[in-house]
Amino acid sequence: MKDEYQLLRIPGPTPIPPSVQQAMMKPMIGHRDHTTKALLKRIKPSLRHIFGTKEDVMIVAGSGTAGLEAAVVNTISPGDEVLVIVTGSFGERFAKICESYNMNVHRYEYDWGKAFLPEEIKSYLKKHPSIKAVFATYCETSTGVLNPVRELASVVREVSDALIIVDGVSAIGATPMMMDDWGIDICVTGSQKALMLPPGLTFIAVSQKAWNRIEKNHHSRFYLDLRRYRTNLIEDSTPFTPALSLLFGLEQSLNLLKLEGLENVYNRHQMMKKMTRAAFKALGIPLLTNDTDASPTVTAIQPRDFNPDQFRNIVKEEFGLILAGGQNHLKGKIFRIGHLGYCTPQDVLQTISCIEIGIQRIGKNIPLGDGVRAAQELYIKEG
Amino acid sequence: MKDEYQLLRIPGPTPIPPSVQQAMMKPMIGHRDHTTKALLKRIKPSLRHIFGTKEDVMIVAGSGTAGLEAAVVNTISPGDEVLVIVTGSFGERFAKICESYNMNVHRYEYDWGKAFLPEEIKSYLKKHPSIKAVFATYCETSTGVLNPVRELASVVREVSDALIIVDGVSAIGATPMMMDDWGIDICVTGSQKALMLPPGLTFIAVSQKAWNRIEKNHHSRFYLDLRRYRTNLIEDSTPFTPALSLLFGLEQSLNLLKLEGLENVYNRHQMMKKMTRAAFKALGIPLLTNDTDASPTVTAIQPRDFNPDQFRNIVKEEFGLILAGGQNHLKGKIFRIGHLGYCTPQDVLQTISCIEIGIQRIGKNIPLGDGVRAAQELYIKEG
Repeated sequence: MKDEYQLLRIPGPTPIPPSVQQAMMKPMIGHRDHTTKALLKRIKPSLRHIFGTKEDVMIVAGSGTAGLEAAVVNTISPGDEVLVIVTGSFGERFAKICESYNMNVHRYEYDWGKAFLPEEIKSYLKKHPSIKAVFATYCETSTGVLNPVRELASVVREVSDALIIVDGVSAIGATPMMMDDWGIDICVTGSQKALMLPPGLTFIAVSQKAWNRIEKNHHSRFYLDLRRYRTNLIEDSTPFTPALSLLFGLEQSLNLLKLEGLENVYNRHQMMKKMTRAAFKALGIPLLTNDTDASPTVTAIQPRDFNPDQFRNIVKEEFGLILAGGQNHLKGKIFRIGHLGYCTPQDVLQTISCIEIGIQRIGKNIPLGDGVRAAQELYIKEG
Repeated sequence: MKDEYQLLRIPGPTPIPPSVQQAMMKPMIGHRDHTTKALLKRIKPSLRHIFGTKEDVMIVAGSGTAGLEAAVVNTISPGDEVLVIVTGSFGERFAKICESYNMNVHRYEYDWGKAFLPEEIKSYLKKHPSIKAVFATYCETSTGVLNPVRELASVVREVSDALIIVDGVSAIGATPMMMDDWGIDICVTGSQKALMLPPGLTFIAVSQKAWNRIEKNHHSRFYLDLRRYRTNLIEDSTPFTPALSLLFGLEQSLNLLKLEGLENVYNRHQMMKKMTRAAFKALGIPLLTNDTDASPTVTAIQPRDFNPDQFRNIVKEEFGLILAGGQNHLKGKIFRIGHLGYCTPQDVLQTISCIEIGIQRIGKNIPLGDGVRAAQELYIKEG
């Protein structure tokens, strides 16, 4: 059963719901056909709802990084000053993209595992009025932190005209995002997270303020030129060939989110986070982040007395349970559990029960079942 | 997530492995084509191995009941005396099929939840030498009993020339069957159990002794005439149109069983049985069967102080966990957990963790996590 059976608990790709998988099996259609136009038109309102914007959300065939790069190259030019808030490896990535294009990057770094403090960013911006954009990560997947992007937008607006650009990968669709109300200018996500699809699509929503900048920005770009996507989207079309099977799946995954109700989806993710954290607290194994900073989609565990990578190998070999490791300087120091997308409290209980056995296997004597019980009790209490 | 997410824990259909599902998506082929012949030829050896016979196993498009009926109408004629050992509703079914064809049916009944006693059957046969066939159920799915068919065959052979015909549905592929060595004459199973396929195929293996009877039997039959299947199978063909997509899947599910190794498959089922039983013992909730009689594929639980059907509704609504109810006079008195086919110890842990919450929900105060821990401990101890 080893090669066939997998419990995929990394922070994306997540398992794919059967009806989404089925939808993706539909035969190919002409991408300039009225059927494709009708599909793109049907998808629009749900995506707007998830991003919390009245603007249309652009869909680009590419990974999440392509979306982040689009946010950069469409708004900023070489030499421009930008502030990148780095709370982990995906903040790092935003910085590296900006540096690749020779922007003047101010990095504001936080210890990995901590959320950023909006008031500190505010003070920094006051001292650096020429910063044209602030890049922030909503869910920092490498550490399991959910950063306060809403509060960030609010305080940045008080002191600066900078665009607020948010990496919403691993967050949007699993936790609230109200772009328009919060005053966020660009927000990006990928298909393989809360949207429960295979990787291959990135989604980009842009405020009116950001569009004004984009129109005036002369930075070279072609495939990622958002102006092309916008113009085409008005007519329910795409500038380049769209990834059709992923769009078939997207329509169905949006249906599923609607059927469950976004509030319920958000609550489910909160519940899975709390259950996971309760379990590790009960087992006496340290979490990387504190309760306030914790993301509803991914939890990082920092064991004191066993090697997380050895542990991950054990549960992978024995249970087909796929967990994520640490990145950069956290490599070999943490492991991460994804609990997002097509994932339920039932799956969290299973994950914990397998993890408990894995911890025994690695030689640490823990009270078997205590993590599961803590998660069950939390579920009953808050459910 | 309610309509999309399901934990299917009934004693068949079981969940289908992804690669089997994929295999079934192959485009249709001509059923008289050499491709179909080649497929049937490739399938043969694995099926023989699972049934423990050197004879070819016939594949009929139909449910398990069609296989049971084939065993009856090919071997027996109206008025013939047969002995049907009834330990539950599937023994009942064998009796009803025989009665439909006006056979002279001796029922040997046991309390539901108990296995039959081969020595008693032996004594009975001694007193009724004109009995031409003994019908027995290997796994009595309605009660979770595994009957001692090996011992039965051994003692019947001592005193009688009767054919020994075994309903191996819910057993074959999950627990050993050595037809030839044990001296069983006909053995039947269905596709939706240990073979991890959708329902729609039944498998029938026949001993040389039974073939001799079948050749001489003039009972009317057409679709279920095993002689037709045998003749065609020699040339890797079928008398009627085969259920091709199920055969595509069958080849892959047989591959998976081979890859895991049959011994390992049997051990996995034993483990799942023991974990399930350990959990309910720890929770103080009575099992219907004793340890000796228990089937490795399905466990029946007989709660004292809550209604099993209400309970099943609760876990279905809350977790998408599908359990089976009781049949006939056990309706409303037991619930049954399937742990067979594409199912693992990890799934058993998840099932128990959800069941524990469900029992709390129905108002019975149990020590949360104790069932999971008992299953974890059993798994570690015996794994």
